[in-house]
Amino acid sequence: MHDIAVIGAGRIGKIHAGNASADARIRLKYIVDPVADVAQSLASATGASVATLDEVLADPSIAGVVIASSTDTHLDYSLRAIGAGKAVFCEKPIDLDLQKARAAVPALGGGAPLFLGFNRRFDPNFRRLHDRINSGEMGRLETLHIISHDPAPPPIDYVRVSGGMFKDMTIHDFDMARWLLGEEPIDVYAAGATMVDPAIAEAGDIDTAKIILRTSSGRICIISNSRRSGYGYDQRIEAFCAGGLMRAGNTVSSTVETWTATGASSEPLQNFFLDRYAQAYREEMTHFADMLDGRVSPLVGYGDGISALALAEAAMESHLTSTVVRIQY
Amino acid sequence: MHDIAVIGAGRIGKIHAGNASADARIRLKYIVDPVADVAQSLASATGASVATLDEVLADPSIAGVVIASSTDTHLDYSLRAIGAGKAVFCEKPIDLDLQKARAAVPALGGGAPLFLGFNRRFDPNFRRLHDRINSGEMGRLETLHIISHDPAPPPIDYVRVSGGMFKDMTIHDFDMARWLLGEEPIDVYAAGATMVDPAIAEAGDIDTAKIILRTSSGRICIISNSRRSGYGYDQRIEAFCAGGLMRAGNTVSSTVETWTATGASSEPLQNFFLDRYAQAYREEMTHFADMLDGRVSPLVGYGDGISALALAEAAMESHLTSTVVRIQY
Amino acid sequence: MHDIAVIGAGRIGKIHAGNASADARIRLKYIVDPVADVAQSLASATGASVATLDEVLADPSIAGVVIASSTDTHLDYSLRAIGAGKAVFCEKPIDLDLQKARAAVPALGGGAPLFLGFNRRFDPNFRRLHDRINSGEMGRLETLHIISHDPAPPPIDYVRVSGGMFKDMTIHDFDMARWLLGEEPIDVYAAGATMVDPAIAEAGDIDTAKIILRTSSGRICIISNSRRSGYGYDQRIEAFCAGGLMRAGNTVSSTVETWTATGASSEPLQNFFLDRYAQAYREEMTHFADMLDGRVSPLVGYGDGISALALAEAAMESHLTSTVVRIQY
Amino acid sequence: MHDIAVIGAGRIGKIHAGNASADARIRLKYIVDPVADVAQSLASATGASVATLDEVLADPSIAGVVIASSTDTHLDYSLRAIGAGKAVFCEKPIDLDLQKARAAVPALGGGAPLFLGFNRRFDPNFRRLHDRINSGEMGRLETLHIISHDPAPPPIDYVRVSGGMFKDMTIHDFDMARWLLGEEPIDVYAAGATMVDPAIAEAGDIDTAKIILRTSSGRICIISNSRRSGYGYDQRIEAFCAGGLMRAGNTVSSTVETWTATGASSEPLQNFFLDRYAQAYREEMTHFADMLDGRVSPLVGYGDGISALALAEAAMESHLTSTVVRIQY
Repeated sequence: MHDIAVIGAGRIGKIHAGNASADARIRLKYIVDPVADVAQSLASATGASVATLDEVLADPSIAGVVIASSTDTHLDYSLRAIGAGKAVFCEKPIDLDLQKARAAVPALGGGAPLFLGFNRRFDPNFRRLHDRINSGEMGRLETLHIISHDPAPPPIDYVRVSGGMFKDMTIHDFDMARWLLGEEPIDVYAAGATMVDPAIAEAGDIDTAKIILRTSSGRICIISNSRRSGYGYDQRIEAFCAGGLMRAGNTVSSTVETWTATGASSEPLQNFFLDRYAQAYREEMTHFADMLDGRVSPLVGYGDGISALALAEAAMESHLTSTVVRIQY
Repeated sequence: MHDIAVIGAGRIGKIHAGNASADARIRLKYIVDPVADVAQSLASATGASVATLDEVLADPSIAGVVIASSTDTHLDYSLRAIGAGKAVFCEKPIDLDLQKARAAVPALGGGAPLFLGFNRRFDPNFRRLHDRINSGEMGRLETLHIISHDPAPPPIDYVRVSGGMFKDMTIHDFDMARWLLGEEPIDVYAAGATMVDPAIAEAGDIDTAKIILRTSSGRICIISNSRRSGYGYDQRIEAFCAGGLMRAGNTVSSTVETWTATGASSEPLQNFFLDRYAQAYREEMTHFADMLDGRVSPLVGYGDGISALALAEAAMESHLTSTVVRIQY
Repeated sequence: MHDIAVIGAGRIGKIHAGNASADARIRLKYIVDPVADVAQSLASATGASVATLDEVLADPSIAGVVIASSTDTHLDYSLRAIGAGKAVFCEKPIDLDLQKARAAVPALGGGAPLFLGFNRRFDPNFRRLHDRINSGEMGRLETLHIISHDPAPPPIDYVRVSGGMFKDMTIHDFDMARWLLGEEPIDVYAAGATMVDPAIAEAGDIDTAKIILRTSSGRICIISNSRRSGYGYDQRIEAFCAGGLMRAGNTVSSTVETWTATGASSEPLQNFFLDRYAQAYREEMTHFADMLDGRVSPLVGYGDGISALALAEAAMESHLTSTVVRIQY
Repeated sequence: MHDIAVIGAGRIGKIHAGNASADARIRLKYIVDPVADVAQSLASATGASVATLDEVLADPSIAGVVIASSTDTHLDYSLRAIGAGKAVFCEKPIDLDLQKARAAVPALGGGAPLFLGFNRRFDPNFRRLHDRINSGEMGRLETLHIISHDPAPPPIDYVRVSGGMFKDMTIHDFDMARWLLGEEPIDVYAAGATMVDPAIAEAGDIDTAKIILRTSSGRICIISNSRRSGYGYDQRIEAFCAGGLMRAGNTVSSTVETWTATGASSEPLQNFFLDRYAQAYREEMTHFADMLDGRVSPLVGYGDGISALALAEAAMESHLTSTVVRIQY
């Protein structure tokens, strides 16, 4: 049984706290949140205690911490937890500033393990796709299409602090591309636009993009992003291999269909990301428990976070300059 | 090049005349129809001449006739054509009266070949299903589900002279069942009802039925019929084999789909039977040309027509008596 | 918080115990099982204590019991629990003997509520189908097709004590038919056969059946059963309504597809019933908690168990006599 | 009845000759081909006569010509036919040399109409997609994905004279993009590679590409090309609109599916382009007949051919320089 703490009792902190409570190998000991009643409420619901981060890090029984606080605290809290010898499961992104993130590499290496929560790698469908690609049954992976469209844009206040669409949204797709391709992209072209809401443009951001990545071995990857699909949460991947195609599709809210004179209709897609990736979040916690058991290394590490961030910065430069940009890792 | 005549210039006669014209091995020489300008119009469109049935049968150049006239003439015209040594391609059903049809067996045997137009056997999808079942790849066929629902009921005047739903509509499914099962049903239970239009009940007919057939080797077949589906022309078959399922599905008017917040929608089914089975009608004419070439025997013969009719009569008796009825062939 | 006990620590008892543990409104206090270490093992895993049924029923803190013991104990334990004033959540079937089950009606009425675990009513897909049929959006339900094929037959030792396929397997479909049709079937025709394994015939049972039910208002329902599909756990329903079709389909183990030169292939169906209906079992426990809260009556009651059993007996009589059998409720 | 000639009796010439023969408004008078017995064979099969191009153009009864000869003759023959006052239906591409094609604009304007055979605009599925996008039902079209993968690469001898993949294959997709977007792309980025066959690289060509186009109004289009899919002829389009997605899918060789323990499998895609687009070729001939009737202007004109060619040249420059290239029309 490993004692852990969850730092941050917001939407995603609640998910991780719930999954930690349900895992037979983990005991959720502390909840940390600057807002007292938010912390207390989640602590009560999960049988944990409220504590400060200092108290958590000073408690020798604590084996690991889940960092689900605001993005600007991710790197600092990770550094402090690793410094205290605690294993870390940190929500993505590790930071919005690539230079700052790179500067922390020495401090984060060699000690306790850090697991970065790119949740989509833990989705059973994408994981199955990954495993079947890597089984070699379909021959060499040649090109990849990742479609990742959100149902609706986030509030404009969130957009302003999000770091921009590439760092906030596409970063998932950059990580997925790297994971499935099995190698680093070498250059990127990103055609971005604002089609959904002029307020997003006013906030200095975009809401739509098509991106082409090329890798050193010659593979090509397309990423398609939109902040508003009009039809739900579109999360599809097509992997074109030498022997054929492998794809992972969307998940539907039920298998019910209607057939009428105007055609056949399925039910809506699973739209809310916490529903769509509920199983992925559970698998993340299982992975963290495996890490605490010492049985596995983190599937996603700090270096993965830096690579995804480097891709996001290069994509932004490409978008702004309308040029193909070479990635600097 | 085989000279033929088409008897009957109505809806289905036009289809056969058009297909005959397009077949490189067939020359459409005559059109026969009691209504002079209907005959003339089709003859003009196809480059054929108008003639009487007597003239057709007396013309030694005529190798075969297509009988697409009204149902009550099918048997008489077939007998006359066979008597004149002409190959016959006769629309289904051969007759509505089982006793009368049986009585004609001696006169129809041994001479020119007679091909009964159960068009669905020539649909590429159902033919492919038949061939794959018979390839044995999926093991022994055990049970069969045939769904055959019409988009909308025929005019009530047609219902009155149709011979009833079992002889008019289900007869296709009885033939399909016999063809796919590869043996004769031994008994039938038919649960019929009128759910679509009370006028059909007043005309002494039904519009909905579920039927179970059993064969001598123990196979079981379900047939589902409705005169009005509400969603189009539903023509599906599922063949449950020892090793798994083989099925043939509906055909859609286009591959276009829309995805919206309420779900994904395909376009309507191909609804009009002349569209849905356009390819089947073409294949029938090719089969008739093969017969005239002497290369094949009819895929569907007179005996098939009698068996299907016997099943229809037994189904009606079952429906009327709420009992399981043994088939008398 | 309601204290409950789970009676029976076998495969299905473990599922219910796990779901009870995870439900915030329920505390799993006792595990009862005649095999001591089986009971102890489940108790340890769930934080419960081992007890006898007598001890459970004598404990005034116990609000309800989950009966997941062998079928032959269901009725007796239910009577004892209801007699002790405990709410009951009993696995199906209530008993294999219709007369005995009917005799218990007086003793089971009016006291503590009894919920019979027909799990499929709690499957989100079938529940959604039920709700949309009943919304009236598609017009009156006219006919119903229920396909329920198992991946593989149970062990022959189980077959011998199962009560026969109709009482063991079809009973789920009879309940589903009654629930979706919203009225009682009045007669049944069942064509049964042994196609899968001769040992099943030797044990006096069948492994394949097609069944037609008719209701008093004239609706017609087909049920298709097989103990071995060859392709997995096939659980489909098609509801033909006046305005079109509503259907619920199978669930697939992942959304991954492959496209090769021989066609497109999806991944296998979710085959194990405990996986396929995992969510349904969770929803059952939620429903039991709602009952204990006094907020709902059981969605499936003792009378539903008797009706399903009466249908199973009538189906067996129909199968044995090859006649249409009127149901005696 | 319009008399026409077909120039070129190769694979595509045969298709057009067959469709011309079957069209009630067209009489196929002449076949022209430099290889005498090839010309004679097609003439015999269609009831036409063999002639030279000079004879055809000198015959005042000839209303139009179908140019299906080798690519290097397209422009010359079109100029001569237009000069002789004949309507032209010319296979794509109009030429492989953009400068040469542009120079011919003055000579081709204002006289007899020229219809360039971009067959995919006539496919019923893509046409339906086009019409539904333009109906506005789904809101403004924002971004577009065109997937166009061939089953297998052409012979290397063909590759050498093809003008390169962008002019030979992608040119269809450039035309489709322009047609569906309803406006001209302004710049292009093309990431090309040779993944299928090193011989293609040796021939100076590529076999794989991902392309991003941007239009003046801000729309973005992705094109994906491969000379070898491994799974058949992949021809899909997704149109992302403000209100949702519209897509057109692949066509399958039959509706038969098998379900086994390893999953559900459909039958192969319709793979040969002459099968996949058989209906499109028929619709092209109908369109040409409509042109000869004076009822319509060409749906695809000479200017469309030049625009597609300009896009192909810009894509090649982008590929060679790894830069985003502005289109020069």
